[in-house]
This record gives sequence, C-alpha cells and structure tokens, in this order.
Amino acid sequence: MRRCAWRRDSRRPMIRNTRHARVEWGDCDPAGIIFYPRYFEMFDSATTALIEHALGMKKIEYLKAYGFAGHPVVAARARFRLATRFGDDVSIETALVECGRSSFKVEHRLSKGGALAVESLETRVWVGRDAGDPTRIVSQPMPPEIVARFTKGGVTATG
Amino acid sequence: MRRCAWRRDSRRPMIRNTRHARVEWGDCDPAGIIFYPRYFEMFDSATTALIEHALGMKKIEYLKAYGFAGHPVVAARARFRLATRFGDDVSIETALVECGRSSFKVEHRLSKGGALAVESLETRVWVGRDAGDPTRIVSQPMPPEIVARFTKGGVTATG
Amino acid sequence: MRRCAWRRDSRRPMIRNTRHARVEWGDCDPAGIIFYPRYFEMFDSATTALIEHALGMKKIEYLKAYGFAGHPVVAARARFRLATRFGDDVSIETALVECGRSSFKVEHRLSKGGALAVESLETRVWVGRDAGDPTRIVSQPMPPEIVARFTKGGVTATG
Amino acid sequence: MRRCAWRRDSRRPMIRNTRHARVEWGDCDPAGIIFYPRYFEMFDSATTALIEHALGMKKIEYLKAYGFAGHPVVAARARFRLATRFGDDVSIETALVECGRSSFKVEHRLSKGGALAVESLETRVWVGRDAGDPTRIVSQPMPPEIVARFTKGGVTATG
Repeated sequence: MRRCAWRRDSRRPMIRNTRHARVEWGDCDPAGIIFYPRYFEMFDSATTALIEHALGMKKIEYLKAYGFAGHPVVAARARFRLATRFGDDVSIETALVECGRSSFKVEHRLSKGGALAVESLETRVWVGRDAGDPTRIVSQPMPPEIVARFTKGGVTATG
Repeated sequence: MRRCAWRRDSRRPMIRNTRHARVEWGDCDPAGIIFYPRYFEMFDSATTALIEHALGMKKIEYLKAYGFAGHPVVAARARFRLATRFGDDVSIETALVECGRSSFKVEHRLSKGGALAVESLETRVWVGRDAGDPTRIVSQPMPPEIVARFTKGGVTATG
Repeated sequence: MRRCAWRRDSRRPMIRNTRHARVEWGDCDPAGIIFYPRYFEMFDSATTALIEHALGMKKIEYLKAYGFAGHPVVAARARFRLATRFGDDVSIETALVECGRSSFKVEHRLSKGGALAVESLETRVWVGRDAGDPTRIVSQPMPPEIVARFTKGGVTATG
Repeated sequence: MRRCAWRRDSRRPMIRNTRHARVEWGDCDPAGIIFYPRYFEMFDSATTALIEHALGMKKIEYLKAYGFAGHPVVAARARFRLATRFGDDVSIETALVECGRSSFKVEHRLSKGGALAVESLETRVWVGRDAGDPTRIVSQPMPPEIVARFTKGGVTATG
C-alpha cells in the first residue's frame, strides 16, 4: 500500500471534513447512552460526506460517474472514551489518512463539548460489479483521478 | 489486566457460545451487501447471549441481581473478510477471551457456509450508576461471583 | 383491488407464517422498552419470510426469477398495545390478507406470552426497474404465477 | 380526548416545527431506496425536537423536570408517496394536532424538493414509572403546564 499521508504529519495537508450530529433518543440503549453500532453509522455517513466533498459530487453521482459499486469497509477499529447520551451534540472530524491502489484509510474523531469521545480508523476498498456475475462485487483499482483528488493539496502518494 | 484465557490456547476451556442469524433485506445497503454496523448489532446480542448462558439468567435479571447498569464497549475492532448478503444464514461463535478487574474481552467469529466472514474483538467494562448522579454511569469492579462464572471450566484468572 | 382473502374469514384459507424473535438490548431505548421502528424492521423480515415460504425460494432468488426490484411498503399502520422489553421472546403471525393487480396487504400480529402486543397492516407494491432509468423503480403488475401462489388455498406454513 | 388543535383548522395556531435531514446510504436497502423503518426513526427525532421547542428544554431535561419516563407511540400510520434515495435532502414538518389527558397526536409531512413524500400520524402517551415496580411504565395525566405549552397559540418554531 502506498502511503500518502498521515494526519498528524503537519507538513502535509490532506482531505478532511467536519460534520455535526445529534445523538438521538432512538440511538440510545436502556443504560441511557448511545448504542455503539450507531457510531459506525455516523462514521459511514461522515466518510461519504468527505468523499462527496473531495469529488464535488454526491455519492449517487460518483457511483455512476466512476462505474463502481461502493467502498465497503474491510477493517474498522474504535475506542470509545466518553459516553454520549441523547441530546448530546457532537462533531466528527474525518480525514483520509492513507490511500493505496484499491483501498484507503479514513480516521474519525468524534468530540462532545471539545472533548474527544470516540476515535476510529477504517479501511475501505474500492469495488465494482463482477463481470461474470453482476450481483457480486469485487475490488478494483481506484481511478487515478480519484487518487489525485484524495491526495490533493500536497497529500501525494509516495509509492 | 489479569489474563484469564486466550481462545486459541487449547489447554484451557472457557465460556463460549454459538448463535445463528440471518442477514435480512433491511440489514443491507444499496450495494446489496450487509451495512457493516449491523454486524456490531449482532455481536452485541451475541455477547449478551454468552453472558446469559454463563450466568444462567437473562440480562434484565442479571442487571438487577448484580445492581449494575450494563457492560458497554470501550474498544472494538473487526475484519470483514467476506461480504454477506440478504438471505445469508450465518453463525456467530463467541468466546470470552480475557477478564480483568472491571473489564473483559470478547471475540466473535462470524461464518457463512463454514467460511470465516468476520472476526471481531471487543473490550467491555462493567458499569454501575454513579452514587452522586444516578443518570451517569461509572466503571466498577466485577463481582467475584461473575469473574468465577466467566472463568469457569478451568479458565482461571492467572493474576 | 381484487380481494383474495381476509384473515378472519374462516371459509378462506390463505398464506400465513409464524416467526419467533427476541427483543434485544440494542432494540430498546432509554425507557427500557423497544424503540418502535424496530417493530417495522421485524415486520419487514416477517413479510419476506412469508413470501419465501409461498414461493419456495429466497428473496434474492425470487427477485431474479421474476425480474423485479422489490415490494416496498406504500402504507403502514400499527397499534402498540403492550410494551416489550429486552429479553422478551415474541412471536409474529403474518398473513397475506388481500392482493390486487400490483399490490398486496399483509397483516402482522406480534404476541408476548400469548398476549397480543402489536398489530400492524401494511400495503406493498410490486416494483421493477424503470426501462428508461434503471436506477428508478416503478410499480408493475404482479406475475399471475405469484398471484396464484399468494392466493393458494391452505398454504399454511410455520417456521 | 380534548381536541386542542387540528392542523388544517386555520383559525387555530398550534405548535409546529420543521427539520431538515439527509437520507444516508446506510438508510437505504438493496433496491436503493430508503428502508421504511428509517422514516419512523426520523419522525421520533422530529417529535422530540417539537417538544423540546415547545418546552424550551432538551428531552433529557424535560424527563427530569416532569418526572416522567417518556412518550411512547401507541399508534402510528404512514403513507409513503414518493421513494427517497441516499443523498436526498428532505424536510420534515411536524405539528401537534391533538392533545388529551394523557395522550397527544403528532403529524409529520416529509417532503423532497417541495413534493410530499411521506405523511404520518402518531399517537403518543405520557408515561411514568410504576410506583410498585420502577422497571415498568404506566400512562399518567400530562401536567397542566405541558398541556398549556402544547396548545399555546402561535408557537411556531423552525429549526
């Protein structure tokens, strides 16, 4: 995997995005705190927002434009540092931290009132429809144009 | 953290459980595959089933019996190896792999047709209500009786 | 709309199915009871199970076999009579109660310990891909073979 | 049930609220359209927002302030007129249309690009903890102050 950037490397700008969300009643469990799979739902939306921002088009458009089927997660990890509860307003800072030939990594940092509540790192692959069976998906190289956009602003692929 | 067991250590039995589930239409996204936060929902239910099995009572009963508020996840990681689709029948093997003073680790291995599709490891803490503010939760030591049950069958805490 | 059956009409057999489910921790809200949208998730799975039974194939297969895109809900209503809580085992009796040219109605009765907890009625349409724009869906007549199976006498399945 | 307002009765102001939401990838099913239980999740959040506006406090605060356990839905119905897809921006107009002694009705109208996509009516009850068993909930009269706020003339909020 070609490393293209790491978010804490201050010399290298990279694509990033910040979103705001509210933890809702229905996101919470009988202990009154968020049911943790809801964080992964928020992160999936945050990654989509990041890519939409980078490509300048909505997901439904970029799926068509580049003839691909999605960018499913193949690995994810998260640390839940502070509990959040219904009514909490949170912000999610999302950054592309690495990109390879057919996969990329995205980091999310979710904060509440300025304090880091959750951090997560996910690896996604670029997939298309299988030529032999269009109901199946297979990983495929990311188009050079996408890589260029993902690494824009000096976040160059380094080989 | 006292190590009590590691699942691949064949000399040591430990608590484990297997569940069966079906991936439903509503669990899947427009690419036709499962939306990955749904796996964490399945794993949460699987952990509950494991503990219910170990303690011989339902969660609603063990929360009351031990006066605690839950066992939220503080860290989770997963690898998604094979995509699953609506209608797929999967089995989830769940094992307690480590337990400490106020936390424990649980591993899940989800298979489809005998092939490993997802593996996940989660760390959970034992929490109670804060004495000063009952709407807040705080971690607390696991009762010795719970530790004994979790490490039953030779899965002894090793210090 | 051609009436094909009404479940309380004892002279007319119809297709029906019963499923069993458990209300999980993650299905419940901070009041400790199920978050009601989860019932609609259960009902959607129950309708799929009913149709799979009637047609003798899985949804992924019948979508291919009949070249259609799904059977989305166009109207739904429900009465929530008894609250259910995490750990509750419920059973869902599902019956096709009416079928028309391109739509059909399904009734669900969810019980807990023999007591009716929720009843719901939904109307679904049979849809295919729009010829001009395959990303769009349009309602279309149900194949006669499907109607025949849906209105078949005495098709009572359990499981 | 005392009628306090009906939204189409132009002589009577009532409380109402408008929210904006985006249909996300994870809200959609393999047909590429929203999985309909997600609408009920949106509506639950919209009702909370309406009440928070009317009472001038967050749900977590008003549950404490009025010593109650929530306002669960006892009946709901919806018509889904237009499909929505991932990336669609929708607006939800929510209005309190009736209030009684221990229950109230809320109407939601969800639009996409100015066109009505979904309309829904829900009945909710005001519940507290059962004195004999605090894990159970029971309906109770709404405090007069709440009724006064809910039926206050001209309380039209947006946001």
